[in-house]
Amino acid sequence: MLVVKVGGSLGIDYDAVCRDLASLIQSGRRAILVHGGSAETNALSEKLGKPPRMVTSVSGYESRYTDRETLTIFEMVYCGKMNKGIVERFQKLGVNAVGLSGMDGRIWQGRRKSTITIVENGKRRVLRDDYTGRIESVNLDLLNLLLDHGYTPVLTPPAVSREGEAINVDGDRAVAVLGAALGVDKLVILSNIPGLLRDLEDETSLIREIPLEEADAFMQFAQGRMKKKLLGAVEAVQQGVREVVFGDARLPDPISKALAGKGTVIRRRTGDGDL
Amino acid sequence: MLVVKVGGSLGIDYDAVCRDLASLIQSGRRAILVHGGSAETNALSEKLGKPPRMVTSVSGYESRYTDRETLTIFEMVYCGKMNKGIVERFQKLGVNAVGLSGMDGRIWQGRRKSTITIVENGKRRVLRDDYTGRIESVNLDLLNLLLDHGYTPVLTPPAVSREGEAINVDGDRAVAVLGAALGVDKLVILSNIPGLLRDLEDETSLIREIPLEEADAFMQFAQGRMKKKLLGAVEAVQQGVREVVFGDARLPDPISKALAGKGTVIRRRTGDGDL
Repeated sequence: MLVVKVGGSLGIDYDAVCRDLASLIQSGRRAILVHGGSAETNALSEKLGKPPRMVTSVSGYESRYTDRETLTIFEMVYCGKMNKGIVERFQKLGVNAVGLSGMDGRIWQGRRKSTITIVENGKRRVLRDDYTGRIESVNLDLLNLLLDHGYTPVLTPPAVSREGEAINVDGDRAVAVLGAALGVDKLVILSNIPGLLRDLEDETSLIREIPLEEADAFMQFAQGRMKKKLLGAVEAVQQGVREVVFGDARLPDPISKALAGKGTVIRRRTGDGDL
Repeated sequence: MLVVKVGGSLGIDYDAVCRDLASLIQSGRRAILVHGGSAETNALSEKLGKPPRMVTSVSGYESRYTDRETLTIFEMVYCGKMNKGIVERFQKLGVNAVGLSGMDGRIWQGRRKSTITIVENGKRRVLRDDYTGRIESVNLDLLNLLLDHGYTPVLTPPAVSREGEAINVDGDRAVAVLGAALGVDKLVILSNIPGLLRDLEDETSLIREIPLEEADAFMQFAQGRMKKKLLGAVEAVQQGVREVVFGDARLPDPISKALAGKGTVIRRRTGDGDL
């Protein structure tokens, strides 16, 4: 079982991601693809006169301020443009994909944060009307039902609260919860950089391996969105995923390369896995 | 088994549609909801500087000219905003909905028209680069799999071509093909009018019943989009659906009212059904 997340940043080659995953599926792998859509959401938000607003929580994590209007734009991009664009690529490649959000069938159920406390210009502020939250459970039954019948799930936020509201959740942490719930061996997280870099300006400064036990020490290199990626990866390994690999979605065969160890690998030092 | 289509025109009360269907489902009915999104697609197209272009085929049917850019806008609205908005309503009502396009799992597979011939200012023109088509088969296995496991499918165009391309299909004809394939007894088609009117300006001129055998004679009253609705209804009854009801989605309990015969009913004159 293979779980792959492809981000939504600029420069990602979705054709290459889908082609690579299609050939892995056609050689017999079961797979779920999770995707983002942040760059396209930003672009559409700008066009619609509702510029994106990124906020930083008191614990230092960045997220998209998601009021109802933003949530609708988010759903149009993530569940419409991105999700169906990927499903169409797979259908052309002969993979019978089924595109779903975390709301569908309550695949990703979580809790909406009633308020979030952010830091803005050095001051704390409490935001309400924010539809964000954190996943607490995964509907594996539905995912396995689809996989058992030959369908490939293509999954994207939002998740759903217990009360049935759409909630924006971080895709990297969502895929970590999914990978852990499925008990997968490897989780591949692709974005538009080669992996975790010591120096963001220098792609040759790639960190090849992060032992789980030393993850805290590497947090200093994780800037912006990378902080949540690393946090999600650490959570996934803590919860039983053997390896998380951060790979580069701008390359040909990005998944196969990540599976071969190209990128940043997070795993227990005591692990006996092959790379 | 109940199949309901709710259109995408202005004035439709989606909350009322979902509430009514939720209570029918919770009283034990199996149901599939199909929806449109035309008014919202027009609004977004305008906002994005790509005004909608409706074209009329040589046989007199109106459709949306759907180039790739339009297709993306279409997917954002139909598969994003509308589909997930309906799924969220159902989740809040305790119905475990799964939102899907006709591309997902190849639920609606059809043939893309390589060209369409339209009439514009009295002249014939051939359009290429139009992603529209007609459904040829329905993946009942996937729909039944979901229904058998307690999920309620919420289905929307686009469909998928054999080659895997997204194709815009008319929602009313799509639901007719679906209803016929499922062999449903009743198909409820809701829009923002009371049914087929003799006089579009006069809502009291409702036609209560159209015997299948006389459908041609009623075609004269069907203007604009109503032409395809009536065509779809006729096709559905010809293919075995006992009754198609055109109902009013602006009313409370619109589905229950349609099931009770409020609206325009299309059926065989020889039918022995109760209304």
